[in-house]
Amino acid sequence: MVKKKTKKKTQKKTNKDNAEKVASKIEKISKEIVSQIKKEESPTFLTSQRGRSNVEFDEKKGVLQLGEKMTSRNFLNLGHAKKFMQTTLVASKTFDYLKKNKTASIREIYYELKHSLGSGKENTFEDQTESDSVIVDLEHSAETIREKLNLHANPKGALYGDITLKDKMHNNDTFNMLQLGRGGWSIMSRMEPEEIEIVKTNAKYVLVIETSAMYERLVEEDFAKKNKAILVGVGGQAARGARRLIHRLYKEENLPVYVFTDGDPYGWYIYSVIKQGSMALAAHSGFLACPKAKYIGMTIEDIHDYELKEVTEKMKVGDVKRAKEMLNYAWFQNKPWQDELKRSIKEGVRIEQQALANKSLEFVAETYLPEKINGKKFLP
Amino acid sequence: MVKKKTKKKTQKKTNKDNAEKVASKIEKISKEIVSQIKKEESPTFLTSQRGRSNVEFDEKKGVLQLGEKMTSRNFLNLGHAKKFMQTTLVASKTFDYLKKNKTASIREIYYELKHSLGSGKENTFEDQTESDSVIVDLEHSAETIREKLNLHANPKGALYGDITLKDKMHNNDTFNMLQLGRGGWSIMSRMEPEEIEIVKTNAKYVLVIETSAMYERLVEEDFAKKNKAILVGVGGQAARGARRLIHRLYKEENLPVYVFTDGDPYGWYIYSVIKQGSMALAAHSGFLACPKAKYIGMTIEDIHDYELKEVTEKMKVGDVKRAKEMLNYAWFQNKPWQDELKRSIKEGVRIEQQALANKSLEFVAETYLPEKINGKKFLP
Repeated sequence: MVKKKTKKKTQKKTNKDNAEKVASKIEKISKEIVSQIKKEESPTFLTSQRGRSNVEFDEKKGVLQLGEKMTSRNFLNLGHAKKFMQTTLVASKTFDYLKKNKTASIREIYYELKHSLGSGKENTFEDQTESDSVIVDLEHSAETIREKLNLHANPKGALYGDITLKDKMHNNDTFNMLQLGRGGWSIMSRMEPEEIEIVKTNAKYVLVIETSAMYERLVEEDFAKKNKAILVGVGGQAARGARRLIHRLYKEENLPVYVFTDGDPYGWYIYSVIKQGSMALAAHSGFLACPKAKYIGMTIEDIHDYELKEVTEKMKVGDVKRAKEMLNYAWFQNKPWQDELKRSIKEGVRIEQQALANKSLEFVAETYLPEKINGKKFLP
Repeated sequence: MVKKKTKKKTQKKTNKDNAEKVASKIEKISKEIVSQIKKEESPTFLTSQRGRSNVEFDEKKGVLQLGEKMTSRNFLNLGHAKKFMQTTLVASKTFDYLKKNKTASIREIYYELKHSLGSGKENTFEDQTESDSVIVDLEHSAETIREKLNLHANPKGALYGDITLKDKMHNNDTFNMLQLGRGGWSIMSRMEPEEIEIVKTNAKYVLVIETSAMYERLVEEDFAKKNKAILVGVGGQAARGARRLIHRLYKEENLPVYVFTDGDPYGWYIYSVIKQGSMALAAHSGFLACPKAKYIGMTIEDIHDYELKEVTEKMKVGDVKRAKEMLNYAWFQNKPWQDELKRSIKEGVRIEQQALANKSLEFVAETYLPEKINGKKFLP
């Protein structure tokens, strides 16, 4: 059992882990297994228990975290044997990646490792959920994140504003996001400091935007320059690469993070994942969360303040159900959010960020966002 | 009724339409309506009939086109009155956009124009499908595309390779896509020549890639540089901005376009839309289609040639149904595609492009694509 204090220390350390260090962790886990076999013990390795029962909301830090419950996988337990084999396959492959300086998507490693066993019909992996689950095991065992194992999910999201990045793995390309036309930069799936350096930014804050269309609107209105803002268009739920980038701007550059989504359960969820982390990735909040992030809107109050009733939509049954669940979430246990959720349920409406176009196209950039940000009219 | 010859001529012309010309077209349509009213005639305007019955596959050009069937909207016809009103609202708003040099997403114009009528409960638009449909009417009436009306859909897709673009609406930013790190450029929703200039490219062809993860793989393998390729990661079905860009590289730069998708009905559909255009946008194939584009794969033959059987997946019932429908499509009436579709149905399998990782991560870049492209092993 890893004690809490030790764990915290290790987690801090891993933020600076490089490929060599992570590879040596994998090697250590593997050597331990080999030594167990030599001693004729049942090969076993430890990983954190997952699922809600082991997820805690750390009130002080304001992030979701994985608890201390550990679980073991034993090769000689019939129920564990296949998973054990899968774990050694993934561990060995990621070790290769780290040594060869290659990276792979989690779908690629699944395909790379999938093959039939011997002459039988049994496959190493039946589908990607099996390898995904093993990757999480390994992240926990090695106390790191998949990006440090040279794995990653799909890329999504765009970046715009006065920020200069350097890609150390690509001729040290150095480019400022205000000089790439109105498209901006396509955020990679991997945004690790060992690869992408934040060279400089003159921005005062990071604005995270749910929809790609609103991102384009704010680019067209020259919002970034006029307000010294970095715009991150996440296009729905933020991909891990976008979350790593936002986290790094928050942590390394000390920039406030403001989140601008539709006013509905999906938008609130996008916000809460950026702020506190997610259940599924509770172990990695230290790499991904921005606990001081603020929610700009859309809010129910906006509908009244800006007379937007005509452009609201009725909440669907599923939305209402989801909003009611959110009322009980630890991280929404504060008056402003309780009021917001209850009011939404009572009025039964949702409002999209693009609905602000009902005032005028420029309204969001010239009135709405400045009023919210300068007046600090946020939800916590 | 617009005669075919006249229409063709006009369509050619519209490729060079600028905001002023399009605005004057809208003005002309509007003036016609005003003059009808003054003459106490029923205000009427003409637009092309839509739906399959008016879509033709032009064998010679190799693209889908809208036929000559026209339809009229009459204000004094009770069934048309609301749509007529909606059309004038959209026409007037796009005229404003063109005059003020503003652009809007099709969701924004919906929200901008949505309001209740008088003291009644009737709204100008109930939902976006209504304004979307009117936008198509207007595109047809003015014989142009929505981008020229300063409207656009959401952006999606990334661009990488030795190509330099200039954004004439953004300080004339000029940037080469090999110098933006490994992320590449985030393709805008609007890629019109009046705004984005293709300054220079040393590439020999354009490679369109279905998944974002495969796009990242090819970037990591330095495929673009080694093969003088432009990579366009479309992330599923290509957005209009990405299609306009691919079309322009095909047309303005005379570059061959190769499409690389999963081997399944969705992948084939992505290909056919890039090559021939789509049913829904049949009128705009001249702005969007690349009739000489070639299909690289994945193919059923690949599964055998590269021993990938273990990493295929069973076709779902819906996939088989879709494949059977495609057998009858005019643009798949050639032996190679008939063979491919029939074989897929017979073997009942689909294969993803990422399944090539089963050979090795580098295999796609070092073996598969070069063999296909250098050997001209394409489907037509």
